[in-house]
Amino acid sequence: MPLYPPPLTRLIQELGKLPGIGPKTAQRLALYLVGRPPAEVNALAGALVDARSKLVYCSRCFNITDVDPCRLCTDPRRDDQVLCVVEEPRDVFALERTGEFRGRYHVLHGAISPMEGLGPESLKIKELLRRLQPGTANSPQIQEVILATNSSVEGEATAMYLARLLKPLGVRVTRIAYGLPVGGDLDYVDEVTLSRALEGRRSV
Amino acid sequence: MPLYPPPLTRLIQELGKLPGIGPKTAQRLALYLVGRPPAEVNALAGALVDARSKLVYCSRCFNITDVDPCRLCTDPRRDDQVLCVVEEPRDVFALERTGEFRGRYHVLHGAISPMEGLGPESLKIKELLRRLQPGTANSPQIQEVILATNSSVEGEATAMYLARLLKPLGVRVTRIAYGLPVGGDLDYVDEVTLSRALEGRRSV
Repeated sequence: MPLYPPPLTRLIQELGKLPGIGPKTAQRLALYLVGRPPAEVNALAGALVDARSKLVYCSRCFNITDVDPCRLCTDPRRDDQVLCVVEEPRDVFALERTGEFRGRYHVLHGAISPMEGLGPESLKIKELLRRLQPGTANSPQIQEVILATNSSVEGEATAMYLARLLKPLGVRVTRIAYGLPVGGDLDYVDEVTLSRALEGRRSV
Repeated sequence: MPLYPPPLTRLIQELGKLPGIGPKTAQRLALYLVGRPPAEVNALAGALVDARSKLVYCSRCFNITDVDPCRLCTDPRRDDQVLCVVEEPRDVFALERTGEFRGRYHVLHGAISPMEGLGPESLKIKELLRRLQPGTANSPQIQEVILATNSSVEGEATAMYLARLLKPLGVRVTRIAYGLPVGGDLDYVDEVTLSRALEGRRSV
C-alpha cells in the first residue's frame, strides 16, 4: 500500500521540484495546503497559471514583464542615456527597490561561467551590442553602461568581458562600487572586500 | 509604478502565504517558476487543485485520505486490537514509514494547549471515545491504545489527559518510549531525555 493517498503523493512530488524545497518541506507544505480552505488553494493555483501564461521576457531589456516592451523600457520619465546591465531579473527588482537608478536596464540572463559551460554566446550580449548601435530606434543615445553583475567570480569575469567589448564603442563603462556593506563591522569584513574598500576610498 | 508586473506580484503574494516562505523566498520561487516550461507550472497548479478537491479527512480515523473510510482503516491485514493516537496526519505517515506498526490510527488534529486556547473539546477526543465503545461496528475489540503524541509540553499534557480518560474503560493504555535518539551521542543529549532514558532502561 502506498504511504500517501495518490493526490497527496503527486502534490508532494510537484512541490519538491521547487528549488530549496526538500522532501520534508514538500510534505509539510502539502499537508498545510490540504487543510486550507479550497478558495485559498485555488487562488495559489490560479496565480501560478496566470503568472506563467501572462509573463514574458521584454524583447528590449529581457526583464520579466506582462507588456512588451516592458514598463521600464517605455517609461518616458526614465533616462535613456544610462543603461544598467545585470545578470538576472531579480537584480532589476533589487535595484528598483533602492529608488536610486532612473535609467534603463539590460538583463543578461546569466553570467559567463566556463565551469557550467556558459560562454558569452549564451547571454544576451548580442542584444546588448545592438542596443548600443547609434541611431537605432531602441536606444537613441546611450552614454554610459553601468556593469552591475554580481561580485562573484562569474559576475566579475562577465563585467571584464563586457568592459573590453564596450569601451571601443566610445561609451562610458562603469562598474558598481565595492566596499563595506552599510551597517557592517570592519572587523567582520573579509580581507578582499576591505582592500577594495580602501582602494575605492573617496574624499569627504 | 509598481515594482513587479501584476501577475508576478500576485504569485509572490500567494506563495508568501505558505508557512516558512518569507517574502525573499516567495520572490525567488516566483521568478524560478516564471522561467520554467508552462507544462511544469500547470502540473503544479493541477496537483494543488486536485489534492485540495479530492482529499478529505477519514470519518473514522481523521487521517487525510481520498477514499472514506481510508485505506488504513479498511486494510483487512491490519490489527483491530491496537489503536495508535497521534496529533497530526504527518505523524501517521512518520509511523507508517517505520513499517513497524500494523494496528489502526486515530488523529486528534492537535494537542491540548491552554496557551493557544485549545482545550480537549477542540480535538477528536469524543470521536476516539466512540471508537472505544465495545460492540460498535467501527472498532470490534480495541485492547490497547498507544499514545503517540509529541514529547512537547502540549503532547505530554494530551497524553496524560487521555490516559486518565481511557484507563477506566478497561483498555490497556501505553505511551511511546523516551530515550536516546538512535545514533545520538550521550554527551549531546539534554538532561531530561537522559534521565528518561535511564528510567526506561531494559535488560538486554
